[in-house]
Amino acid sequence: MPDSIPIAVLGASGYSGIELLRLLLRHPQANLVAVTSRQLAGRALSDEFPRFRGVGVADSLRFTAPEVSALVQAGVKVAFLALPHGVSLQFAAPLLEAGIRVIDLSADFRLRCAKRYAEFYDHEHPCPQWLDKAVYALPEWRPEQIRTAQLIACPGCYPTSILLPLLPLMREGLISPEPLCISSMSGASGAGRKESVPLLFCEVQNSLRSYSVPVHRHLSEITQELELAAGRPVPLSFVPHLVPCHSGICSTIFARPAAGVDAAAVGEVLQRAYRSQPFVRLLGENRSPDSKNVVGSNFIDIGWSMDQRSGQLILMSAEDNIGKGAAGQAVQNFNLCHGLAPTEGLLNI
Amino acid sequence: MPDSIPIAVLGASGYSGIELLRLLLRHPQANLVAVTSRQLAGRALSDEFPRFRGVGVADSLRFTAPEVSALVQAGVKVAFLALPHGVSLQFAAPLLEAGIRVIDLSADFRLRCAKRYAEFYDHEHPCPQWLDKAVYALPEWRPEQIRTAQLIACPGCYPTSILLPLLPLMREGLISPEPLCISSMSGASGAGRKESVPLLFCEVQNSLRSYSVPVHRHLSEITQELELAAGRPVPLSFVPHLVPCHSGICSTIFARPAAGVDAAAVGEVLQRAYRSQPFVRLLGENRSPDSKNVVGSNFIDIGWSMDQRSGQLILMSAEDNIGKGAAGQAVQNFNLCHGLAPTEGLLNI
Amino acid sequence: MPDSIPIAVLGASGYSGIELLRLLLRHPQANLVAVTSRQLAGRALSDEFPRFRGVGVADSLRFTAPEVSALVQAGVKVAFLALPHGVSLQFAAPLLEAGIRVIDLSADFRLRCAKRYAEFYDHEHPCPQWLDKAVYALPEWRPEQIRTAQLIACPGCYPTSILLPLLPLMREGLISPEPLCISSMSGASGAGRKESVPLLFCEVQNSLRSYSVPVHRHLSEITQELELAAGRPVPLSFVPHLVPCHSGICSTIFARPAAGVDAAAVGEVLQRAYRSQPFVRLLGENRSPDSKNVVGSNFIDIGWSMDQRSGQLILMSAEDNIGKGAAGQAVQNFNLCHGLAPTEGLLNI
Amino acid sequence: MPDSIPIAVLGASGYSGIELLRLLLRHPQANLVAVTSRQLAGRALSDEFPRFRGVGVADSLRFTAPEVSALVQAGVKVAFLALPHGVSLQFAAPLLEAGIRVIDLSADFRLRCAKRYAEFYDHEHPCPQWLDKAVYALPEWRPEQIRTAQLIACPGCYPTSILLPLLPLMREGLISPEPLCISSMSGASGAGRKESVPLLFCEVQNSLRSYSVPVHRHLSEITQELELAAGRPVPLSFVPHLVPCHSGICSTIFARPAAGVDAAAVGEVLQRAYRSQPFVRLLGENRSPDSKNVVGSNFIDIGWSMDQRSGQLILMSAEDNIGKGAAGQAVQNFNLCHGLAPTEGLLNI
Repeated sequence: MPDSIPIAVLGASGYSGIELLRLLLRHPQANLVAVTSRQLAGRALSDEFPRFRGVGVADSLRFTAPEVSALVQAGVKVAFLALPHGVSLQFAAPLLEAGIRVIDLSADFRLRCAKRYAEFYDHEHPCPQWLDKAVYALPEWRPEQIRTAQLIACPGCYPTSILLPLLPLMREGLISPEPLCISSMSGASGAGRKESVPLLFCEVQNSLRSYSVPVHRHLSEITQELELAAGRPVPLSFVPHLVPCHSGICSTIFARPAAGVDAAAVGEVLQRAYRSQPFVRLLGENRSPDSKNVVGSNFIDIGWSMDQRSGQLILMSAEDNIGKGAAGQAVQNFNLCHGLAPTEGLLNI
Repeated sequence: MPDSIPIAVLGASGYSGIELLRLLLRHPQANLVAVTSRQLAGRALSDEFPRFRGVGVADSLRFTAPEVSALVQAGVKVAFLALPHGVSLQFAAPLLEAGIRVIDLSADFRLRCAKRYAEFYDHEHPCPQWLDKAVYALPEWRPEQIRTAQLIACPGCYPTSILLPLLPLMREGLISPEPLCISSMSGASGAGRKESVPLLFCEVQNSLRSYSVPVHRHLSEITQELELAAGRPVPLSFVPHLVPCHSGICSTIFARPAAGVDAAAVGEVLQRAYRSQPFVRLLGENRSPDSKNVVGSNFIDIGWSMDQRSGQLILMSAEDNIGKGAAGQAVQNFNLCHGLAPTEGLLNI
Repeated sequence: MPDSIPIAVLGASGYSGIELLRLLLRHPQANLVAVTSRQLAGRALSDEFPRFRGVGVADSLRFTAPEVSALVQAGVKVAFLALPHGVSLQFAAPLLEAGIRVIDLSADFRLRCAKRYAEFYDHEHPCPQWLDKAVYALPEWRPEQIRTAQLIACPGCYPTSILLPLLPLMREGLISPEPLCISSMSGASGAGRKESVPLLFCEVQNSLRSYSVPVHRHLSEITQELELAAGRPVPLSFVPHLVPCHSGICSTIFARPAAGVDAAAVGEVLQRAYRSQPFVRLLGENRSPDSKNVVGSNFIDIGWSMDQRSGQLILMSAEDNIGKGAAGQAVQNFNLCHGLAPTEGLLNI
Repeated sequence: MPDSIPIAVLGASGYSGIELLRLLLRHPQANLVAVTSRQLAGRALSDEFPRFRGVGVADSLRFTAPEVSALVQAGVKVAFLALPHGVSLQFAAPLLEAGIRVIDLSADFRLRCAKRYAEFYDHEHPCPQWLDKAVYALPEWRPEQIRTAQLIACPGCYPTSILLPLLPLMREGLISPEPLCISSMSGASGAGRKESVPLLFCEVQNSLRSYSVPVHRHLSEITQELELAAGRPVPLSFVPHLVPCHSGICSTIFARPAAGVDAAAVGEVLQRAYRSQPFVRLLGENRSPDSKNVVGSNFIDIGWSMDQRSGQLILMSAEDNIGKGAAGQAVQNFNLCHGLAPTEGLLNI
C-alpha cells in the first residue's frame, strides 16, 4: 500500500467543497493536512460542518488563510481548488510553480482557447499560457493525459452528464451534423451555497424553471469537447433547469443519428467505450436513469432510446452534480494521478 | 346575474378531481348538487377531504354511487368527468343521451381518429361515433366550437403546455418541418393518487427521471393538434420527466424556425394570438417561466428565445398540471359554454 | 354593499406581506391604493411578484417609498404594516396621528407591558404609550375591542396556534398550574425572506431542528395572553422547530388537566367557545390536525386527546403560519373593524 | 484481521432493509451470502435496487425464498431480520435453533414482559419463552449482554432517540417523577415502503401532523427501559409527528429535573456516560441538534437546555431513523458481537 498523500483543499465552503471534504476525510490514501478559507480561518472543520464531527481529522484540523508558502511547508503534494470561478486562477500558478499538483474544480482552466473563454466569461483570461498545459480531465476519456498532468481541470457538472453519453457516439460518427437539443435538470446545490433570496427553500421548493437561456457558460466546454471528438463543428442548444432537489442532474439529449444507425449500434458503441469503466453504468435501451440512484455516489447512469416516429435518438443520463459532476470526479482524477485503484474512496453508495 | 347551474362531478378522488372540487365549491355560478364515487358513497365531501371542511356544501353533500338516472333527477345540467381513462367513456354516452352536457377530463374523447386511439391506447375505441362529436377543448383555440359542444374533451396536462406556445406559430408557418424536440417536467400529482410504491414520498423526493420514453400517450393528441394547425405532418420527440414537486409543469420546446423568422416575429404572432386571452401570460424574449408563479391558478406563462449559435427557437411554458392543465381548463370551458366571464371562479392566485 | 375601503400595504416583500397582497388583491371590499417599499420603489407589483401578473391592480400599481403624507393624500383609511420588528413602530404613530387605522403584523405592539418587551426584545420600547392603546388582536377572542381599535397588533404565528386551543380551557379553569410543555413545528416561510445561508433550499430540505431554545420571543405574548385568561401565572416551556415545508405550523401542547377534567369536558368548552367562529375547526378527540388541510387558508384545525397513562391532556393544532398566523388574521381583523362578513375575501381553499 | 463473517438479510425490501444492505454490502468483515424475499425471489439485488449496481455482490447475489435450511447450508452465521412486526418471530426460533445468531430489527422481541406486549400489540406473544432470552440491544447501554447474546432485539427508531439522552439521567436520579412530555418528528421512511395513499409524495410533501395519539406502540419499550434505569414507574406522554423528509428523527423531551439539578449536572452525567462512545455526539447546552447532520450516518447528536422560567429541562436529539435508529444500530450490534471495532463499516458520513 503506498504511503498516504498529503493534500490540501482550498475554499471548501460551497457544496462541491463540502462533498470533497466528505470524500477526502475518509479516503484511505489521502492525508488531509490543510483546509483553507479566509473567512473561516481558525475554526475547526467540524465546527463549521457539524456533520463531520467525530470523523477523521475533522475535529482537529482548522481552516487557515490560503497561503501557498504554508501549504508548501506542510508538505502538500496535491491541492484541490474548490474556489469560485476567477479565484482558482489566482492560486493555480503559484501552487504549480511550487511543485504542487492542482486539481481544479472551477471553470478557470477548462477551455483550450482563450478567445472562447473571453466570449463566454466576459473578460480576457489572465493567464492564457496555462490553458495549454491544463487537461480537461474527464477520467473516462483521456486517462493517459490526466495521469501525468500537473494542472487538472475537472469538467463542469452539466458537461459531464452530457459528454459521457455523447462522446463515443460523436467520435465514431453515429451522430449527424444536425443541431443537438439538450435539456438538463439540476438540484439546487449546483447554484451554490451563497446568500441569495432566489435560492431560499421557499423560493425553490415549488419551482420548476429554466435559466440562462439561450447561453449558459457550460455550453463552451460542451461544444469544445464534442467538436474535438467529432472533428467538425457541433451546433447545439442547451437549456438547464433548476428543480427542487438538493443534488442530482438528469440530462436528456435529442440527436439525429447518422444514416443507418439504430439503437443496437448505439448500445454497442457505448458498451465498448465504457466496458472497463467502473463508474459508468449503461442501463440499456428505453431505460430511464433516475438521479436518486446516483446521488451521493460517483456513478453516472446512461440510457438511450430510438424514437422511430421522429427518427431521433434520445440519450438520457443521471449523475450527482456535486459527486461525479464535481467532487467525485476530482477524487477519481486524484486516484488516476497517483496510480491508485480507480474506485479508491469512491464506492460510497 | 344568471341563475347558478346545477352540476355534478363524477369520480373526484384523484388530484385533478380534488382541484375541480376546490374550484367548483367556490364558483359563483356553479351549484354542486352531486358528487359520485362508488368507493366513497355515503361519506360527506369534507369527511374525505378535510381541507374543504366549512366551505360551501362540503359538509352537507355526500358522495353517491354514479347513476345517471339519479343525476337527471337531481336536475344536473353539466357533468364533469374526473374519471380514469377508459371509465369516462362508459358514462359519457348515457349522460349525453339524457341531455346532460359532459366536460370530460380524461383522454377518452381527445382523439378524432379511432385508429390513432387504438395505436396509442392498445385497444379499439368502444364508441368511435362519439369521437366526431367531441371537441378537443383548448379554450384559447376553438372557443366557438366549445361554446356549443355537448361533449367537451379537455386537453391533457402536457399537451396544454406544449400546444399553447406552438399552435399559433404552426398555423402561421413560422416553424420549419424539422422534428421538434420537447422536454417536459411534471410534479407528482400528474401521476395520480393511487396506491403505488414508486409514487411514495421517499421514492419521489430525491428523484429526477424521464419516463415513457420514447412513447408517451399524450404524444397522440399533441401531434393531432399540431398537424391540424400546420396542415402538414409534424414529427416530434416528447420526453416527460417526473420531478419532486406536488404540482406544476414546465415544458421546453426546441424547434427549427422557418427561414427569416426571428424572435421578434415569434413574439408578434404570440401576442396577436393571445392578446385578449386572460390566462395566457407572455413573458417575453429570453424570459423563463417558473411553475411556482402559476401553481394553484389557471394561468400559463410563456417565454421564448432564439439561440443564434444553433439556429433554433426555444419555447418555454409553465402551468399547473392539475389547474390549467386539467381542472382549471375544465372550468374555463364551463364558463365558455354558459356565457360566463372567462375568469369566473378562476382568479385564484 | 359598502363602498370599498382604500388601503395601503407597507413593506410587502416578505412572505407574510406577499400573502397579504394575495388576499387583498382579491378582497371584494379592499381597494389597494398604495404599496410601499423603499427598495422596490418604482416597480410594478407584478414585476416583483410575477405570480400576480394579470390580477387586479398588480400590473398597474407601483411600489412607492413609504411616506405618510403620500398615503394620506391617496385617501388611505387602513394601513397594513408587514414590516420587520422595530420598523413598524416608526410608522405606526404618524399613521395613527393622521387618522389612518393601523393593522400591524409585526411584534411591536403585542405586549402590554414595556418591561416585558424590554426583557424579550433586548431594548426599551421607544413608544410605550402606544402599548396601552394597541389591541392584541386575536379576532376569536376579543372581537369587541378589535372592532373599535385604531392600532391592531396581530398575534404572532406560533402564539395563534397555541392560544386558540388553550385560551378557553385556561379561562374556564380546566388546566392545572403545572408547567405547560409546547412543541411547535413551522415551515421555512416563518423564518423570513432574506438572504441567508441557513435558509437555503439545500440547508433546509433535509433538516429537522429546534431553535431559540429555551427562549423564543413569542414566549412573551403566549404567556401574556394565557395569564390574562387564567388569572394566574402560567409557567410553560416552548420549543419551536424548523421543518422542510414552505408554510404551515403544527403545535402540540402537553398540559395537566385540573382534577376531574376529561376529554369530553375539554371538547365541550372548545365547542362552546368556537361554535360561531367560521375559521376554527374542531376535529374532535384523538384526531390529529394536518397542516396540509389549512395551508393557503385562514382556518385553524384543533384536536385533543387525554393520555390516560400519564394523566396529561394533549392539544394539537394546525394553521398556515403566514395565513391564519399572519396575513389571514390581519384581513380577518380588517373585516371585523369594517363590519364586513368575517369570511369576506378569506374563503380561499 | 478476522475472517469475514457469512451473513444473511431476511426481508430487505423496506427502507431499513435497504439501508442495511447499503451498510453490509460495504462492510469489510461482513460477507453477504443470502438475501431473502418471497416476493423478489430470483431477482438480483441490483435489479431491484439499481442504486447498488456495480457494488460488491449486488449484481451477482439473487433474492431467495426465506428457508432456514438453505441459510444453514450456505454457512450463514448471522441473520439480520428486516421483516415486518409479527413475521420476525416466525423465523427467529428456527434460526436460533439452527445455531444462527439473530439480529432482529422488528419489535417482536423488544419487550421483556408478554403482558405488556399483548397490551400494545393487540394479541398474545406467540413465543414468550424467547422474550427472556432476547436482549434489548442499545449498544451504548448494555454492551456486555449484547456481546454474548444469540437473539438481539434492536431498539425502535423513536426509542433510540429518546432513551440515549434520558437513560443516564434516569439512572443517576436527575429527573423527578413528574410525567415526561416527548414530541418527536420523523421523516416518512419511518412509515415504511408500502403501497399507501397517505404516504404518497403529494400527501406528505406539505404535511405536518401528529399521529397515533395518545398511544404509539413505541411507548411500550420507552417506558420499559426508562423504568429499568430509574427503578420506579416513569409516566410519560409521547407524540410522534410525520414531516416531509425522507429520513431523520428529531426528538424534544421536556422533563422536570430533580431538586438542585442544573444544566451543568446534566452535561456532566451525559459526558460521563458517553465519553467513550463513538456514535453519541454531545453538542452542549442550548445547542439544537439538526437531523441533516446525522442522516446517512450512525451518529446521534444530543443537546440540552434548562428553562429557568418554567423550571424544566429540555433534552433534544437527532438521529437517522433508518440509520442509528435501525440498520446502523443493527450493524453496531453485529460489530459488538464479533469483537470488531465499533465503527467498522459505520463511518459513512
